[in-house]
Amino acid sequence: MRILGIDPGIASVGYAVVDYAGSRFTPVTYDTFHTPAGLTLEVRLLQIYEFLCGLIAQHRPDAMSVEELFFNTNVTTAIMVGHGRGVILLAAAKHGVPVFEYTPSQVKQAVVGYGKAEKKQVQQMVKMLLHLKEIPKPDDTADAVALAVCHAHSAKSKLLQLR
Amino acid sequence: MRILGIDPGIASVGYAVVDYAGSRFTPVTYDTFHTPAGLTLEVRLLQIYEFLCGLIAQHRPDAMSVEELFFNTNVTTAIMVGHGRGVILLAAAKHGVPVFEYTPSQVKQAVVGYGKAEKKQVQQMVKMLLHLKEIPKPDDTADAVALAVCHAHSAKSKLLQLR
Repeated sequence: MRILGIDPGIASVGYAVVDYAGSRFTPVTYDTFHTPAGLTLEVRLLQIYEFLCGLIAQHRPDAMSVEELFFNTNVTTAIMVGHGRGVILLAAAKHGVPVFEYTPSQVKQAVVGYGKAEKKQVQQMVKMLLHLKEIPKPDDTADAVALAVCHAHSAKSKLLQLR
Repeated sequence: MRILGIDPGIASVGYAVVDYAGSRFTPVTYDTFHTPAGLTLEVRLLQIYEFLCGLIAQHRPDAMSVEELFFNTNVTTAIMVGHGRGVILLAAAKHGVPVFEYTPSQVKQAVVGYGKAEKKQVQQMVKMLLHLKEIPKPDDTADAVALAVCHAHSAKSKLLQLR
């Protein structure tokens, strides 16, 4: 199974393509995509959408694992991330990739086995599971890899539905 | 000038294509696009995106006028509308249509001349300006028409930028 983990945003979108077979992880590609601050919101959304479409077309993942939005964070930020998340989910739907969503504590639980684990513990576990020399940088990339691992580990993944 | 007014959402998206020339408005088409509640969020986003792309390709508007999100409304709702708004802005960017955004009070100011006008006053003014027999239904449609009128009337329209 090939999983595309996504840490959504407008300024930066963390992504990770990870293969999972026989309890073993193989990283395919992972990084963070940035959009310039000087552009209009709609052009940044277009850049994110086109990048994601290209990534999906190239790597053909079986599932997208994306972070669920916090509802208790800064509202303005959350709405902006909502815009970015909208075009990310659209890219998945356009290419027929099923979408799964996980909260940060579900990611911690699935990766480290403890929902209140420190970010550093999650990153160390990701590094170990994927046989990486270093923890992926920046945090958006590491979060995207963790989301991919989370989906692989999660027995009860659920289809994203409108609440 | 041909303006596309949009009242964004996930379940329903109000839209209105209006021509404005010589201080006179001519309605081209207006209605509300609905997505079924039983579908996943990503499929609803895809339906909205493809509908908008079709509408833009058919009517080739010179500008999109879209409602700015309330930051003091229900957060969960606002994030969901953010998803819908993301794919709506993407459709504009994909077709090179400039995006302008207005708050509800800017719409009231531009349409009725009073930022705290009642919704009914806005709807009556829209009906009169566009020489319609009835107020457009549902409210999403009426809001979309008002957004188109607002952009035509607004001297100080501004390009949408990331806050």
